[in-house]
Amino acid sequence: MLKVPNHQVAGHKAGDGKLGPLVDDSGRFYKPLQGNDRGSNELTFYTSFSSNTRIPDHIRRFFPKFYGTQLVEASDGSGLQPHLVLQDLNFGRVNPSIMDIKIGSRTWAPQALEDYIQKCLKKDRETSSLPIGFRLSGFQIYQNRELGFWKPERTSFQSLSADEVKLFLRKFVSSNTSANLDLQPDCSFASIVYGGSTGILSQLLELKAWFEDQTIYHFYSCSILIMYEKDFVSNGKIPCAEIKLIDFAHVYEGKGVIDHNFLGGLCSLIKFVSEIITTPDECTTEASPKDIQKNQIYFENGTS
Amino acid sequence: MLKVPNHQVAGHKAGDGKLGPLVDDSGRFYKPLQGNDRGSNELTFYTSFSSNTRIPDHIRRFFPKFYGTQLVEASDGSGLQPHLVLQDLNFGRVNPSIMDIKIGSRTWAPQALEDYIQKCLKKDRETSSLPIGFRLSGFQIYQNRELGFWKPERTSFQSLSADEVKLFLRKFVSSNTSANLDLQPDCSFASIVYGGSTGILSQLLELKAWFEDQTIYHFYSCSILIMYEKDFVSNGKIPCAEIKLIDFAHVYEGKGVIDHNFLGGLCSLIKFVSEIITTPDECTTEASPKDIQKNQIYFENGTS
Repeated sequence: MLKVPNHQVAGHKAGDGKLGPLVDDSGRFYKPLQGNDRGSNELTFYTSFSSNTRIPDHIRRFFPKFYGTQLVEASDGSGLQPHLVLQDLNFGRVNPSIMDIKIGSRTWAPQALEDYIQKCLKKDRETSSLPIGFRLSGFQIYQNRELGFWKPERTSFQSLSADEVKLFLRKFVSSNTSANLDLQPDCSFASIVYGGSTGILSQLLELKAWFEDQTIYHFYSCSILIMYEKDFVSNGKIPCAEIKLIDFAHVYEGKGVIDHNFLGGLCSLIKFVSEIITTPDECTTEASPKDIQKNQIYFENGTS
Repeated sequence: MLKVPNHQVAGHKAGDGKLGPLVDDSGRFYKPLQGNDRGSNELTFYTSFSSNTRIPDHIRRFFPKFYGTQLVEASDGSGLQPHLVLQDLNFGRVNPSIMDIKIGSRTWAPQALEDYIQKCLKKDRETSSLPIGFRLSGFQIYQNRELGFWKPERTSFQSLSADEVKLFLRKFVSSNTSANLDLQPDCSFASIVYGGSTGILSQLLELKAWFEDQTIYHFYSCSILIMYEKDFVSNGKIPCAEIKLIDFAHVYEGKGVIDHNFLGGLCSLIKFVSEIITTPDECTTEASPKDIQKNQIYFENGTS
């Protein structure tokens, strides 16, 4: 029996008669094949990537597993429709804290259609993509059993300044993230989630080394998901911190050139994360917590 | 006595009543302060950079020395005009082979004026800047005493494909670069000029490490000059291969963010140079030498 995913933080959502992805209870994620070029482009990517023997295993693990395509009952009631069958990245997770970070100062390929380029360029300039090299595209932090998740609305955190982005990245690994935005994030989980030999920074650096070399694909408008379990850390268990790349509707052939646009954005994200690990106590001076009070839109309950 | 530089490969040139840079016989380069914001912006950069104690010496050596400003007789006959006084990067060189490579897929800052942004964006899309992350902006190769320099016209090599760019970068370190474009470049100087512990690649990697960390400046429309003496290599001497950054009229404050745009382009250039070192014999299959015959415009004699 397919159902709407619990922890989708960005993208089209199923429910209320709308078309969106579904999950089953065996760890698979069903993403509707978009009717325009995007669907076929994403299918082309997954097909190419899954059979490409030049992708090392330590890089392949950063991508969702691909199980082909399947006709399933679409969430909008339109009957059987083709879906990409992918790994459900939240399968087995309990109360995941998740960031969806769209990488690159440019979300459009040189060969894209002019209308699409102009639309993307406008958004890249209006958001933090152009100045910072990435933008937050989805965000949920688990607070605790009583308060559930803090899940600010997407439009409210895409155009942040560098200091505001840093504040969000700090809140993501803080024990005191809550509805009370006057609290400075304590970053008490920074060293265990972002740092360490298997932490987020280490994974980002592995990905970076591959991007410095690979000239197979250029990833436009692709996101890095960062996920971990805050409850596990609080209870002294490993945080299951991991990164995954998602959204490949705008992947093109690299044709012998590295993906300098993705790499630049990735290096910028790495710099932000590194700084939080090395100076977790540093208070941001320019962005006050109150400045982003406007970003706090609604809360929803956790699943436990 | 000031004179017109012998080896300027890009930018406004003095002579024929036009305003351009001049050099003296003591190793100084006089660059007219452009009347618009660019001149004052470049002066601001040099003033800030030269007094900034956070710039390590191994990075400072990649920038021209700055000696302040001075009123000198302008090359266009307009009388005494303010000039930046800089290090003449070709002082002491005999027959330098030089590439001017404008770094970054985007040559405009987010805060630039709209007209300027649109002009730059158009050019970035028309040239190799957008797809490759940099574009050749100046190019001269010393051939030998008889043939002098091969100096194709700028407009002819800015919109190259990746394979064509690689061909130019290979020709730059070949002994058989000549008017005869049917010859495949032999890359016989690749290991000594690009490679080695003090070669171009090593210098580019030092610069890259700094750009992964520094958030002081963002360099838009800035070039890396790559220079060496082909005659020296042919005679078994050291090639005096070095990189220098030039053109800082569009440098802005980094404000806590790395220069992901410059860094991405730099990493792309590094990948091209690395591939030539590791596979100097590889023939480019997609770009035939005849394809760029159109680029060969004129020759001038060497200085020895």
